[in-house]
Amino acid sequence: MKDLMTESLTKEDATALILQAKKRKGLTWEGIAEAISMSPVWTHSAAMGMNAFPEPKARELMALLDLPAEAIDALTESPTKIWDQAVPTDPCIYRLYEIVGVYGPTVKALIHEKFGDGIMSAIDFDMKIDRVPSEKGDRVRIEMSGKYLQYNCW
Amino acid sequence: MKDLMTESLTKEDATALILQAKKRKGLTWEGIAEAISMSPVWTHSAAMGMNAFPEPKARELMALLDLPAEAIDALTESPTKIWDQAVPTDPCIYRLYEIVGVYGPTVKALIHEKFGDGIMSAIDFDMKIDRVPSEKGDRVRIEMSGKYLQYNCW
Amino acid sequence: MKDLMTESLTKEDATALILQAKKRKGLTWEGIAEAISMSPVWTHSAAMGMNAFPEPKARELMALLDLPAEAIDALTESPTKIWDQAVPTDPCIYRLYEIVGVYGPTVKALIHEKFGDGIMSAIDFDMKIDRVPSEKGDRVRIEMSGKYLQYNCW
Amino acid sequence: MKDLMTESLTKEDATALILQAKKRKGLTWEGIAEAISMSPVWTHSAAMGMNAFPEPKARELMALLDLPAEAIDALTESPTKIWDQAVPTDPCIYRLYEIVGVYGPTVKALIHEKFGDGIMSAIDFDMKIDRVPSEKGDRVRIEMSGKYLQYNCW
Amino acid sequence: MKDLMTESLTKEDATALILQAKKRKGLTWEGIAEAISMSPVWTHSAAMGMNAFPEPKARELMALLDLPAEAIDALTESPTKIWDQAVPTDPCIYRLYEIVGVYGPTVKALIHEKFGDGIMSAIDFDMKIDRVPSEKGDRVRIEMSGKYLQYNCW
Amino acid sequence: MKDLMTESLTKEDATALILQAKKRKGLTWEGIAEAISMSPVWTHSAAMGMNAFPEPKARELMALLDLPAEAIDALTESPTKIWDQAVPTDPCIYRLYEIVGVYGPTVKALIHEKFGDGIMSAIDFDMKIDRVPSEKGDRVRIEMSGKYLQYNCW
Amino acid sequence: MKDLMTESLTKEDATALILQAKKRKGLTWEGIAEAISMSPVWTHSAAMGMNAFPEPKARELMALLDLPAEAIDALTESPTKIWDQAVPTDPCIYRLYEIVGVYGPTVKALIHEKFGDGIMSAIDFDMKIDRVPSEKGDRVRIEMSGKYLQYNCW
Amino acid sequence: MKDLMTESLTKEDATALILQAKKRKGLTWEGIAEAISMSPVWTHSAAMGMNAFPEPKARELMALLDLPAEAIDALTESPTKIWDQAVPTDPCIYRLYEIVGVYGPTVKALIHEKFGDGIMSAIDFDMKIDRVPSEKGDRVRIEMSGKYLQYNCW
Amino acid sequence: MKDLMTESLTKEDATALILQAKKRKGLTWEGIAEAISMSPVWTHSAAMGMNAFPEPKARELMALLDLPAEAIDALTESPTKIWDQAVPTDPCIYRLYEIVGVYGPTVKALIHEKFGDGIMSAIDFDMKIDRVPSEKGDRVRIEMSGKYLQYNCW
Amino acid sequence: MKDLMTESLTKEDATALILQAKKRKGLTWEGIAEAISMSPVWTHSAAMGMNAFPEPKARELMALLDLPAEAIDALTESPTKIWDQAVPTDPCIYRLYEIVGVYGPTVKALIHEKFGDGIMSAIDFDMKIDRVPSEKGDRVRIEMSGKYLQYNCW
Repeated sequence: MKDLMTESLTKEDATALILQAKKRKGLTWEGIAEAISMSPVWTHSAAMGMNAFPEPKARELMALLDLPAEAIDALTESPTKIWDQAVPTDPCIYRLYEIVGVYGPTVKALIHEKFGDGIMSAIDFDMKIDRVPSEKGDRVRIEMSGKYLQYNCW
Repeated sequence: MKDLMTESLTKEDATALILQAKKRKGLTWEGIAEAISMSPVWTHSAAMGMNAFPEPKARELMALLDLPAEAIDALTESPTKIWDQAVPTDPCIYRLYEIVGVYGPTVKALIHEKFGDGIMSAIDFDMKIDRVPSEKGDRVRIEMSGKYLQYNCW
Repeated sequence: MKDLMTESLTKEDATALILQAKKRKGLTWEGIAEAISMSPVWTHSAAMGMNAFPEPKARELMALLDLPAEAIDALTESPTKIWDQAVPTDPCIYRLYEIVGVYGPTVKALIHEKFGDGIMSAIDFDMKIDRVPSEKGDRVRIEMSGKYLQYNCW
Repeated sequence: MKDLMTESLTKEDATALILQAKKRKGLTWEGIAEAISMSPVWTHSAAMGMNAFPEPKARELMALLDLPAEAIDALTESPTKIWDQAVPTDPCIYRLYEIVGVYGPTVKALIHEKFGDGIMSAIDFDMKIDRVPSEKGDRVRIEMSGKYLQYNCW
Repeated sequence: MKDLMTESLTKEDATALILQAKKRKGLTWEGIAEAISMSPVWTHSAAMGMNAFPEPKARELMALLDLPAEAIDALTESPTKIWDQAVPTDPCIYRLYEIVGVYGPTVKALIHEKFGDGIMSAIDFDMKIDRVPSEKGDRVRIEMSGKYLQYNCW
Repeated sequence: MKDLMTESLTKEDATALILQAKKRKGLTWEGIAEAISMSPVWTHSAAMGMNAFPEPKARELMALLDLPAEAIDALTESPTKIWDQAVPTDPCIYRLYEIVGVYGPTVKALIHEKFGDGIMSAIDFDMKIDRVPSEKGDRVRIEMSGKYLQYNCW
Repeated sequence: MKDLMTESLTKEDATALILQAKKRKGLTWEGIAEAISMSPVWTHSAAMGMNAFPEPKARELMALLDLPAEAIDALTESPTKIWDQAVPTDPCIYRLYEIVGVYGPTVKALIHEKFGDGIMSAIDFDMKIDRVPSEKGDRVRIEMSGKYLQYNCW
Repeated sequence: MKDLMTESLTKEDATALILQAKKRKGLTWEGIAEAISMSPVWTHSAAMGMNAFPEPKARELMALLDLPAEAIDALTESPTKIWDQAVPTDPCIYRLYEIVGVYGPTVKALIHEKFGDGIMSAIDFDMKIDRVPSEKGDRVRIEMSGKYLQYNCW
Repeated sequence: MKDLMTESLTKEDATALILQAKKRKGLTWEGIAEAISMSPVWTHSAAMGMNAFPEPKARELMALLDLPAEAIDALTESPTKIWDQAVPTDPCIYRLYEIVGVYGPTVKALIHEKFGDGIMSAIDFDMKIDRVPSEKGDRVRIEMSGKYLQYNCW
Repeated sequence: MKDLMTESLTKEDATALILQAKKRKGLTWEGIAEAISMSPVWTHSAAMGMNAFPEPKARELMALLDLPAEAIDALTESPTKIWDQAVPTDPCIYRLYEIVGVYGPTVKALIHEKFGDGIMSAIDFDMKIDRVPSEKGDRVRIEMSGKYLQYNCW
């Protein structure tokens, strides 16, 4: 019976293939993103299996990395987004969590002041990350943009 | 003995006073921030007791709101930043938490690619929030900027 | 100083006033909802402080219940939606939680099949509850409707 | 001794076989459900191992997918329903959890108003999911129906 | 405004009144239960606010205890059943929790063997507790009875 | 060195052997229990590795199931009783947990009333499960019996 | 109605009275225990509300401390034993928790070796604490004794 | 590269070897402990990998059990003491946890009374377990002894 | 009865008195510590109620701050050390927690290398905090010193 | 396809190689650290995969330990710092956690007193561990140094 179960590639397999090819070819996420005409944040996230590739983008990526087309199925599937740590421990990610803890109520208050009773969508959403030179030490700039969604009254 | 314990104002008292005066005077956070020459995000956050006011800013704020100077002590104290919900339930704040869960590893990877082995500071940090008009529905733009901090080798 | 802090009504106060007036007048949520031309689900939820009343609806409700206009401010504020029990204990609410645990992945799979890579909004959302007669015992019917939100690629 | 332990198929094995055959044959859950005369929600849920197939339905499904009868035993067993995340992280499932958090007390209040002191069963229960076209963007409609169960006094 | 908020009795108030009257009159739960023609388990549970009294039973109880009728409203309301300790610490209650941990899968297996794919209802449910004399030390006997509920296929 | 570690059978191995033999022979837990002159609840629980078999009972069981004597060692060992879910998710087991949450304080109060300051033992304990026919739908009856243990004063 | 609720003394009240009288009279727990002919561990525990006083002991204690008899009711009630910290933080108590974590499986193995398949009762239980002089620094000796309870087979 | 990683024995391997040899030779923990002139509690704990063997004791143990010297390295390493269950579920271990919950504050109070502001060490610590015959049923006696450590003032 | 319960000062009361007197007199922790000839870390910690004052130090402190002697009892009591947040949220304290997470295993390995199988005591312990000037930005130096405690073999 | 996935060495593999070579060569962390001109704390931490090696240091380490250069890639990657136990159980690490719980607010207060509103960086950070001889028993000294980071006002 087990020969019926020859497994196809999972999203994890596809991620592993991409990470190895990226290293082998000496590419950066910025370079990969540019080559497939997408942003670096989205490209990394989709390569990690946290977003779904549109089929043509998956095809372009596989070609760029000399990877076989068998991974395309996995790359285009809707991911189940799971994270294990309710409170992340890695300092680089924890600082983002801390910002949500400290400034979350402030973001909420200013959205209500500027828009009304609603939220910023995390689905119709995009983000970019930049390096901003500064004499006192360069800065990381994170820019998020999400559609405003108004609560319904019915 | 209890008369020795006539309590002075706490940060919570100061926040309550500010919120009532703001409502009484029909002010907005943007308006208050502009009046004391600070940003709206920082001003709201400090008024909520999550940041400390420099003494002159506390004084300006009390004057603006016709509040007594007794609250200045509380406003200038270093706050103990506490949030109760490890995972926030309010949808407007949860979406920010969700973004950290989904995109945290991506932010980390791109910071490492652009800067090296380090993080974005949540202390030497600022943030702003804008409304961006769009035909498909206006968007919330959140811009964060934090100093890059490099891990030490010793 | 304390006389500056004469507190205005909170959402909790408004809820308590509504519950007492409802009992005093012998009203039902269906009756209240009909009187202010809103649905029972939304009306109860807003009265509990989990949604914000538009100002005219708050005014109509206060009039219906012979309650003073001072509560309108609280009723129209954007609520901070907090629930204490990550896993609810009340059997009536737990069963809903259980349905999410058992059928959540199924809802996700069928949304992806019918719509694509996206979710049902819980913000642009409405719900109704009906009693459906049945010979084997009447049934509760819950109908939820939320806007489909497509994940962004950028 | 170990040859005594030649394991039979588990529910997980059966799910894997079904998912692969579904992909190989290019079927949808709606198509599979129609072919075995069951609803899509129940069919997906049972295929995921969260419900038990009646023996004839398991047989029909295996025939439809050209899968061997050895999986029928696993498909008809009563499942142990386990979910790992008390609070789900995938946004599509989290929104359902959020709805329970925000509207759970409302559902409870309206059930009590319409029926008395009791609950909606999650066992004598069914659910369906539809796509409802709308000019402002199509909507997901989820309809749940569960038998009303009255608390016992004894 | 606050005079609008003269609070009526809550379930907690009613419980406190009952406990004091029970002590004052030197009654037992068994005696109270017999006097209102209900079982001791149900009577105690309802007196603690974990079940709702039918109106006539509430009236009988108040009469028995010489308590005023104002508490009847609270006693007949559908309770929100909340317990604070996911794992109870009191040894007498913990042992019940331990029995569920150790024998839960056994109860499940035997229900499936005797009935099919379903559960014992905790809603259409009753329970009694007896003292069984024994030479090696008297025993506690707990007898639970719940309606069998079959999972739906649809 | 590794040849020193030829592992003997664990309790999990023994459970797997029993489950397969039971299916192969088409036995029920009731039938197995009767054949070894023990109760169904205890027999299932011990077969799952949650209780220890007396050596003769282990021997009888192995003979009944045509299983080799090598498993007897594992079956007679004192188990370490571990359950992973502090709050069980399977509905059939959760309902038992819910009963402890709702009626735990009632069980405690009635034990104190009938016996004094003590508890029902979960060690000197037995349980049985029956199907009770009823016109309104058959019922599950669970009967627990545990020795009363009095708290010590010293 | 509220005058019906003139509350009697709770266990917490009784504990507070005892602690103040103990300080006022300059007594030790050892002294109090000796005066009522009980052990120090049990006496402190019962005074803290974690054990129930037999009526004569409660009476002796009240007399010893010149406290009124009204507290006897509270002292003789069966306590609900609750502790808030699943993992205690106070170092003196945490070390005991740590000993359970490190040596728990060892205690279990040696009980099984010396007695069979059973446990040490925490109900039919007593404990004492001594100071043992030693040249390298005095030692705390804790001696626990609990009845062996054998698991039932049935 | 992988041939560089021929792994040496871990503490878990050593534990497995000891358990098998103990069973093969029909030894008890008491017997093993006596043979290497250590106490049963310490010997079992060290064999489980929760304490480190001094090198000569490890050598004696390996000789006693006819086990190879390769395991000595693992046995003498300082262990990382990890337990998975913050609240243990096995009844035999849980009862110890319960004793800490109920009597922890009492132990603390009596240590402070007998010694001053300090704790019992869990490091400079020993424990023994005995069977104490009794007409009403034999008892388990656990005796712990730890050095008193005084808090520092500086 | 309630007049028996005129409460004496608690550690929390004493802390509040100290904080107010410190502010009134414009003192620093360093200044207070020097005045009573203790270190700043210990002095602050004891003033917060996390350590017990020796009686003469409590007396000196009360004199320094012009506070009444009634607080001395509370200041000299052995504290129950409780912290609410298992993972602290305040960034200044969280960074210390993070250091334990990242470097804890390293501290352990180096203690084992330098001392043997044991730990650094947190009871026979002291700490100091300094400001170290540096051209790249001043640094915080924390120095901890705890007695090495060797694990016992017995 | 799977031959595309010939995995390169992970940080865990590199750690395992280092630990074995260290044992084989009889080195200490102090010795290794000295040989590559880094501190013992940093060297151990980086070898455990909690810090990234600069490429030349990784090369020196591999040469020192006669390990192949293939591990250098893994050693120089930015680690994702994860720890599983929010509250560590090993006593040597727990004591550090306890120190944060007891003295965290004190560290915070003294940093604010000496520097202003800011924190000690855990990124621009170093630590060392020493053995300090003492007649009453040698002591562990841990010295941490982190850059002071001032909160931003904007």
